[in-house]
Amino acid sequence: MSRYVAKVQYDGSHYHGYQIQKNGISIQEKIENALLLIAKKSPENPIKIIGSGRTDAGVHAMGQVIHFDFPASIPAINLLRALNSILEKDIRIIQCNQTKIDFHARYHAIGKSYRYRVDTQAFPDPFKRNFTTHHGYPFEIERIQEGLAYLQGEHDFTSFCSTKTDKENKVRNLYEVKANLDVPNQELVFDFKGNGFLYNMIRIIVGTSLQIGDGLKEPIEMQRLLDIKDRNQAGPTAPPQGLYLMHVEYEEDPFE
Amino acid sequence: MSRYVAKVQYDGSHYHGYQIQKNGISIQEKIENALLLIAKKSPENPIKIIGSGRTDAGVHAMGQVIHFDFPASIPAINLLRALNSILEKDIRIIQCNQTKIDFHARYHAIGKSYRYRVDTQAFPDPFKRNFTTHHGYPFEIERIQEGLAYLQGEHDFTSFCSTKTDKENKVRNLYEVKANLDVPNQELVFDFKGNGFLYNMIRIIVGTSLQIGDGLKEPIEMQRLLDIKDRNQAGPTAPPQGLYLMHVEYEEDPFE
Repeated sequence: MSRYVAKVQYDGSHYHGYQIQKNGISIQEKIENALLLIAKKSPENPIKIIGSGRTDAGVHAMGQVIHFDFPASIPAINLLRALNSILEKDIRIIQCNQTKIDFHARYHAIGKSYRYRVDTQAFPDPFKRNFTTHHGYPFEIERIQEGLAYLQGEHDFTSFCSTKTDKENKVRNLYEVKANLDVPNQELVFDFKGNGFLYNMIRIIVGTSLQIGDGLKEPIEMQRLLDIKDRNQAGPTAPPQGLYLMHVEYEEDPFE
Repeated sequence: MSRYVAKVQYDGSHYHGYQIQKNGISIQEKIENALLLIAKKSPENPIKIIGSGRTDAGVHAMGQVIHFDFPASIPAINLLRALNSILEKDIRIIQCNQTKIDFHARYHAIGKSYRYRVDTQAFPDPFKRNFTTHHGYPFEIERIQEGLAYLQGEHDFTSFCSTKTDKENKVRNLYEVKANLDVPNQELVFDFKGNGFLYNMIRIIVGTSLQIGDGLKEPIEMQRLLDIKDRNQAGPTAPPQGLYLMHVEYEEDPFE
């Protein structure tokens, strides 16, 4: 038995999220089934994969990281090719390495980066309907940037966390939070880097930021929301299809 | 009754092509149904739209041009908004003008531009599976460019036309034909501009060009194919999902 680590890209449009669940197809299920097929094992001996974390239905990944134990020791490049030939075209393994037997994709992650893409054209771009959220109203990027600045650093993000969470501790450190205009593509792009993210945290920050950009809320409202710790006073949860898990950070890069 | 001209973008992935047909949903049908709804007419009084030409199943458009006669004279911007609010998100009207009653989207077109996008990454990009064709082998762009140069100008393109065509005259003028590497996006991009294109012409040129790039055919083979006028000796028809109708040219720009 050998432990492998893999980097996965997926278009989440047609999935009910990363994690296996009863009512819907998941990324995890697709990859586990492919591994079982490669190992020529029966479903009574499942090969479990562990991801760095969940992504919701419709959310995409450019660099999700998983690990798993495979019953045979085969070259990682062969495993990568076999997985890509079996998997649907909307999931792709872009890197695969044999790794230490104690490497853990979730427990050893020390940071994550996410991107959120907003289509700012007057009418929604037909080619981006699954890959951005649409916001066709005029907005002020400077107001959004001013609001986001309050969120940088270590804070209790209770106001920016879905009430459906089971996490007690809502303190997270946001190392980097940016909003920029991608003028040629007519997009507003948010970039986040932090030691961890709460359930729906980015989508609620984006939903609130768009209200600030539109003039519905003031930039300093972000500070008030940090203080008041009440999800109901923040903006709406932005739709999933604009969100991308870009990168998972480890103390030692498992793909070196 | 007033005549309108409109510029249409569509993601062709889920359609059986532009033109109405019995066994499958078409772009034309979707737009005609939307117009009927806006006009509050019954299907016994259809509002026909005329496109600049057909696009095949899976083929996309950035600038398809259509015209139609609407039973009332309403501001074009209202018609555009109403259409976009009814149409599926994969079709979008980006411009709409009231036009001369004798304007004809097909007969008055004097030229067209197409693009063909090839994903050159080792494994197919999950986000581009419907928007490019994948070619993961090494190729020489210079060989492709050398081959394409033979096609520029006025030629009989019989070798590059599906035998299923009903067109007798296979002479077309290719004003411009280019292949370039889009390095940041890891794509090979073909651009075509001509006075008209035969059935599958671009897809057969691209299929043949990829063989030339791979070393399976010599660049000068393009000249031999022009001379021999035999579809069966050219390369395969490249898949539809890499193809985009970019622009339709008119003597007088109907959107000015």
